[in-house]
Order: sequence, then structure tokens, then C-alpha cells
Amino acid sequence: MEIGLVGLGKMGYNLALNLQKNGHLVIGYDSIEAARKQADISGIKTAKDLKEMVASLKQTKIIWIMVPAGDPLEAVLSEVNELLEPDDIIIDGGNSHYKDSIRHANVSATKGIHFLDMGTSGGKSGANAGACLMVGGNSEAFAVIEPILKGICVKDGYLYTGKSGSGHYLKMIHNGIEYGMMQAMAEGFEVVEKSEFEYDLADVSKVWNNGSVIRSWLMELAESAFQKDAHLDEIKGIMQSSGEGKWTVEAAMEAKVPTPVIALSLMMRYRSLEEDTFTGKVVAALRNEFGGHEVTKK
Amino acid sequence: MEIGLVGLGKMGYNLALNLQKNGHLVIGYDSIEAARKQADISGIKTAKDLKEMVASLKQTKIIWIMVPAGDPLEAVLSEVNELLEPDDIIIDGGNSHYKDSIRHANVSATKGIHFLDMGTSGGKSGANAGACLMVGGNSEAFAVIEPILKGICVKDGYLYTGKSGSGHYLKMIHNGIEYGMMQAMAEGFEVVEKSEFEYDLADVSKVWNNGSVIRSWLMELAESAFQKDAHLDEIKGIMQSSGEGKWTVEAAMEAKVPTPVIALSLMMRYRSLEEDTFTGKVVAALRNEFGGHEVTKK
Repeated sequence: MEIGLVGLGKMGYNLALNLQKNGHLVIGYDSIEAARKQADISGIKTAKDLKEMVASLKQTKIIWIMVPAGDPLEAVLSEVNELLEPDDIIIDGGNSHYKDSIRHANVSATKGIHFLDMGTSGGKSGANAGACLMVGGNSEAFAVIEPILKGICVKDGYLYTGKSGSGHYLKMIHNGIEYGMMQAMAEGFEVVEKSEFEYDLADVSKVWNNGSVIRSWLMELAESAFQKDAHLDEIKGIMQSSGEGKWTVEAAMEAKVPTPVIALSLMMRYRSLEEDTFTGKVVAALRNEFGGHEVTKK
Repeated sequence: MEIGLVGLGKMGYNLALNLQKNGHLVIGYDSIEAARKQADISGIKTAKDLKEMVASLKQTKIIWIMVPAGDPLEAVLSEVNELLEPDDIIIDGGNSHYKDSIRHANVSATKGIHFLDMGTSGGKSGANAGACLMVGGNSEAFAVIEPILKGICVKDGYLYTGKSGSGHYLKMIHNGIEYGMMQAMAEGFEVVEKSEFEYDLADVSKVWNNGSVIRSWLMELAESAFQKDAHLDEIKGIMQSSGEGKWTVEAAMEAKVPTPVIALSLMMRYRSLEEDTFTGKVVAALRNEFGGHEVTKK
């Protein structure tokens, strides 16, 4: 099939390669010229703008968007909604907030355009060699793209999740779980690293990946990281986040579902961004006030 | 090789089958007659007591113990230490506290007996078809039993971890990580279950097992559980624990390593044991005291 792919960053670029491997014709577009050039070199056709991209596709047009949520996505959507005709299909494969996706679906629907919200998991390697996709939105539009998904996903690696928003909602929760799993693993490794015994963490994660209860892809990634840098001396423990963990906690609070471990995993990420904390200063000051306990001066 | 296996419960029994499949001669013993009978029926030779079991083994005797930590283990160890000779090998394959294992190794060492502390992961199926083992203690004794481990473990599924205690220490942390991973997954599933969308959790866990970042053996077990009981209507959310999570938090506190997520996972297990909480009563009473907020009467 023909697919217009907007966004040729690390996920979109690898997805384009995966689509082409599966016999689809990709017309790519990225607002950054270097990204278009890299795609050209890899044999991915590119268009100079969205108008050209849309014009070059046959009906029913499928526009698959892999750009960051927020302003970049909103800009692409408003232009694409202008260019498409009824029954054309927009796929948002990025990490959008599910409430935005519901809104996007409603906006596109006023023109008869189908908007599918697709959560994409599996990282770069997944995008290239076998993705895991969770798709919400119009079921007939999903049926149109299902043959594409069958080829580019691992076996059983895609799911139609129901009405608009449900795909991105599920991906959001997936990421919240990921935060908790990673924090739990990381805490365990820190205890092991600081224990009275001498362990090789590459060996430890390797044995844990072979037959243990905690074997997992994340543990395989840990094994790979420890093989490269046994004590992770080369990096700082700063844990960035891109929104989904926070959204998971917000969704949990809206539904009054206690998610203490996911919430705390998020808080520990925020903590990691601070060299020193105001909380720490307050507690130190109070201990000094009531008990004369020494404070560490700046 | 010949192995005396003490404890024919669900782990020991499956381990005995695995050892026999690998061509070893197992002489089993369990203080419970029914367990001995079940083993007999499955073609595992059993002895009527530890003395007979030890007497029936050739030198170097290997006694592999799979009994609960605490009194049952202490009783077996004190008897076995009496019966064995220098250079014989005791393996404690249970979930003992690593400090007990260091003590046990020291006691056995006074008689020249080697004591190996072995953490066993992979559950019943692992014990039967491919275990994951972490072994601490004398390296020469480990070398004696290594050929056995090679057969009964999955590929790369065993690790010599160093001095006495290091095997059980590593298994303890493994279980602490397991607590956190399970709690994170479970919290995510609760949000999904109570969301505005209608998901089939068997489908959700299935797609997450195929290509996603959070694919894992625990997620496969979740898929299996949701296939049997879509909303887990048949069970209560009571989360028992058998010590290792608590020990992990204690070890973390001794080393002053912050492990908030593992600690909170443990606390949520304790919370699940209470129908109502005194904490809840205190907070409700205080809200009533300062703001006249209504309390729920018993």
C-alpha cells in the first residue's frame, strides 16, 4: 500500500524502513531537511512539503504521523485535515495524550476523515524490525490499515483497542508500568552494587535473564548496558521523562486508583533532575531549629 | 552423579524430576510421608530418614536441601552436619536469609564440610524444566556441582556469585525487584480496568508481550491469569509475602540505599492484608476533629 509518513526522526525513519521492507510505498516528509536527506539516501522517497506528499498518494490516502505531541503535531494535523478528503485516514503514531487524540478524532470527523490514535512500543529496534502497536478509533479505518500492521509488527504485536483515545490511553499506561518496572530494577541493582559482596552486574543481569522470574526485555537492556560499562561510570543518574508517566498518574487520580509505585517512580525521576533539593534544606533547617543538629553549609 | 535431596515439596519434587531427567541418581527425603510416597510413585528413590539417605550416597556426598528457611532448615542442617564427612557438600536451595547462610557455612566449615547457598528462581516450572540458580560459597565445591547445574538450568541460567551468602543475597534482591515489577504492572492494570475505555486485559497483556518495552515473563503470567479469569473475579487482592521483600528493604536500609519503590511495594502487600486500617481511622477521626468532616461509623 501507499503511505504518507510525516516525521522521519529516529522512530519515523525506522518505521519507514520497516514499511518498505514489507513492500509498501512510503512517501516521507520531515520539516527538517537533514532528516529528508537521510531518508533519501536510504531509498525512502520524500516530498518537499505536506501538499506534495498528499498529492502524490492514491485514494484512500493514509497519512501516518510520527512527530512530537503538542505544537509540531497540531501544525501537521491542521494542514493535513485541510488536504485530505472524506474516508482518508490519519494515524497518529506518537505519544499524544489520549484526550488530545479524542479531540483530534472529533476534528477530523467533521470532514469525514478517520483519525486513528496508535500507541507505538518497542523502541527504535521495534519500529525497524517488529513494532508493538495499540490502535484506537474507527474500526473500519482500522480494518483498512490492519494488513499493514500485520507485516510490520511482531506476531500478535498489534491490538485494536476500541474507540478513539483508547490506543494512546493504553500506551500511556504501558509507559507508566515501564517507569515502575525500571525503577524497581534500578533500585535492586543499586543495592547489589553497594552490597558487601562483589558482583559483576553484567553477569547478574545475564543470569536473571535466563530462567528467572524477573526476566524481561528491560533486564536484557540492563545486561547490554552493564556489558558496555560495568559500573555505569560514564553516565549521570539523571532520569528524564517525556510525559506519559505523569499522565498515567493524572489518569489514576482522575479515576481515584491508587498507583503509589508508578507515582513514586515519577517523583524519583523529578528528584534525579535536582542536584540539591529545597526539601532537603527545609528538613536540615528544621532539625537544626529543634535539636541544634548541624547543617551542611553551602 | 548421586544427590541426596531433602524436601520434596513443590520445588524439591520438581527439582528431583529435573535431576533424574538429567541422568542423576536422586535419593529423596521428606519428613512428610505423603511427599515421600508421591516421589516414590514418580520413580524417585526415597530414604526413610536422613541417616539412611546419607548412608546410601557414595563419597563425595552432595546433600541438596529444599526446605523452608528457619526451624525446618536448622533441624535438617544440624542433623546433616553430624552425618557428613569433610569435603562433603551441602546445598541450601531455599530462600534463606543470607546472614543465616553465612552462619551455616561457618558451622559446616568447622567440620570441613562445604556449604553452598543457592538462590533458586523460575518457580515450579523452572525447577522442573530449567531453573535459574545463584550460588555462593566455596568455589571448589561449586566446581564439583557445576556439571549438575549445567544440565538442570536453562542455558546461562546459573551463576557462581562469590563468597558465602552472596547467592542468597542476590536471590533476595531478585525477589525485591520482583515485588516492584509486579506492583507496577498491577497498578497499571487497575487503571486500565477502571478506565473509561473497555479493554480485554487478556488481549492487553498479550499485545504487551509481543514487541513492547514491558514484555516479560511476569507479563506472560498476567496474560495467562487474565485468560482464565478476565476480571480476576474469583480471587481476592490479598498479597502475601514470604520475607525476601522485607529483607531487601532491610539490606537497603543497612547500606543506606534509597529503595522507595521496593519498600512501597512491600507496604502495599501489608496494606492488602488489612480489611480496614487503623491509619484510616486516625485520619478520619482527625478530619472530623478539625473540620467536622463526617466519619463512616462501624
